[in-house]
Amino acid sequence: MTIPLSVIWKDEQLAILDQRLLPQTVHYETLETLEQVHEAIFQLKVRGAPAIGIAAAYGLALAARRHHTIDIDLFRHYVKQDAAYLVASRPTAVNLAWAIGRLVSRIDQSRTVEQGKAQLIEEAQLIRDEDEAACRSIGEHALELLAEKEKVMTICNAGSIATAKYGTALAPFHLGKERGREFEVYACETRPLFQGARLTVWELQQAGVDVTLITDSMAAHTIGAKGIEAIIVGADRITANGDTANKIGTLNLALLAHAYGIPFYIAAPVSTFDLSLQTGSSIPIEERAAEEVAAIGTQQIAPAGTKVFNPAFDVTPAKYITAIITERGVIRPNDEQTIEAQLYAVPSKGETI
Amino acid sequence: MTIPLSVIWKDEQLAILDQRLLPQTVHYETLETLEQVHEAIFQLKVRGAPAIGIAAAYGLALAARRHHTIDIDLFRHYVKQDAAYLVASRPTAVNLAWAIGRLVSRIDQSRTVEQGKAQLIEEAQLIRDEDEAACRSIGEHALELLAEKEKVMTICNAGSIATAKYGTALAPFHLGKERGREFEVYACETRPLFQGARLTVWELQQAGVDVTLITDSMAAHTIGAKGIEAIIVGADRITANGDTANKIGTLNLALLAHAYGIPFYIAAPVSTFDLSLQTGSSIPIEERAAEEVAAIGTQQIAPAGTKVFNPAFDVTPAKYITAIITERGVIRPNDEQTIEAQLYAVPSKGETI
Repeated sequence: MTIPLSVIWKDEQLAILDQRLLPQTVHYETLETLEQVHEAIFQLKVRGAPAIGIAAAYGLALAARRHHTIDIDLFRHYVKQDAAYLVASRPTAVNLAWAIGRLVSRIDQSRTVEQGKAQLIEEAQLIRDEDEAACRSIGEHALELLAEKEKVMTICNAGSIATAKYGTALAPFHLGKERGREFEVYACETRPLFQGARLTVWELQQAGVDVTLITDSMAAHTIGAKGIEAIIVGADRITANGDTANKIGTLNLALLAHAYGIPFYIAAPVSTFDLSLQTGSSIPIEERAAEEVAAIGTQQIAPAGTKVFNPAFDVTPAKYITAIITERGVIRPNDEQTIEAQLYAVPSKGETI
Repeated sequence: MTIPLSVIWKDEQLAILDQRLLPQTVHYETLETLEQVHEAIFQLKVRGAPAIGIAAAYGLALAARRHHTIDIDLFRHYVKQDAAYLVASRPTAVNLAWAIGRLVSRIDQSRTVEQGKAQLIEEAQLIRDEDEAACRSIGEHALELLAEKEKVMTICNAGSIATAKYGTALAPFHLGKERGREFEVYACETRPLFQGARLTVWELQQAGVDVTLITDSMAAHTIGAKGIEAIIVGADRITANGDTANKIGTLNLALLAHAYGIPFYIAAPVSTFDLSLQTGSSIPIEERAAEEVAAIGTQQIAPAGTKVFNPAFDVTPAKYITAIITERGVIRPNDEQTIEAQLYAVPSKGETI
């Protein structure tokens, strides 16, 4: 039983878990060229903002080793070209651009190409390690909040395979397992793309965490019938007032938690906060293709040509969020203090975000 | 554009819509023998309590014509044998046993075999017509309640193809269409078996009603984003206090309706009430096989052997139900009067149930 990882750097080699094949096939693909890294990100073999950033960072460092020049300026030029190419693999992935940006800045001060190459790998490793530390810290805070609670529900996959290790919403279960604390996790399947059924169930099974799959429609009945004590989910973006955009279906769960009087937790790194937006109404909600809902793989479910509404995310109002668990500590959106004040007041554990 | 029917009796022939093939294939199968009717019910080609009862009634009447005796006692004996065989096709279907029981009683007074054969067909026709009238009446009452409302959400298929015609929860949309009143219906796909995506979407499209498909997980966001004004669903069983068992996912919707302050309606014939049960906690919830959730058709979604919780129904507490719409009128479970008192107080429209 081990916590599965999505990006592995070992013996100077980069391997990524092809998440499109899960759970039927567990395949780690070795990426040797910049083009392969670009393709892995573009084709969604790697998913989860932190995991994408980490894979791209290693990819850039890997490709840099192939540039056979001793001219540091020319080297920087090549790396910047590679960087632009990688960022274009998924233009909306903020974390990807951020990670690549860190690597590019890092070699601004390099004196030799040799040094630059080493520093790129160092920086990629740093980004990875920082993310693992942040997830671990989120897990610590979540474990405290979950205290005596055992039965917890989640949706989508805010897990180890979306990050360096541990994940965000799934971090307390992994960390708990390491410490002999057992949870009973209920994973919502997460229509339309089944990230819960395909990824979260697999990941927790791999780690030896007790997990039960339900359809999203069973959430209310399950909370009552199984005595669910808390719900914990990840986040895509959190605005200044605490409104949180996350995978479609999250808002359902928040309203159910409210109805049943159980806590509803968001687990997310500080980097998820977008304080430039005041409330969730400013967050644009991506609408995706009808086929994602009307068909499953090659299997048509609804009549061909059916009109479908397919929003990818929803926004949970802050008032339904008991707490936001970050690597720096726990933020309570309904406290008197603003979120911004709480963000800067909580004692840092030393992780850079 | 016509309202699709599930059981058709025409020119002394019985045809049923094979609902397992929907929406890809629209196939009406002519049933000529008792064995074929048994098989159609057993294999779930026909679904929906009223539709099953109607198909069985016609099936019994059809088979009776083949009994070539002139001895009325012997004829009754044969019919009773057939009746027992048909009832066994789906032992838990209360409506099936009830319909068959009506036919069997009907020939108690028949003087000749010829008369008996005619009366069986007459009774089957009567059961069918009464069900259509009841559904139509439910539609009338629902149209009144929905008044100015246009955007309505539903789950599963409490539709024309589950009844003689019109359905229960879908009756106002069909009846509205006949009268030029347009609705915008949002159909939840209804995991795990997709009755919403497969049946409701198809049925409403056939009838020319504007319908949009969403996953169950999109309900909360859709209520807000699209301005849903009411939710209307069917029922499997309603207890004396108004608690209502219906397809899994119904309770989710009831709690969301409550959170958004929009009405939540149950549409069901009076026969759905089980006044012998005081509250919903007495209703046993059937749990079904893990494969229904973990795989879709032949396509495996979750890892093989995944632990699944798969309740087929949930129970919505009466306090979340704005009104129960029956063929006799509208019952409000949260009024001072008991449901039983309301059931007998509402002016009957003459339908026998």
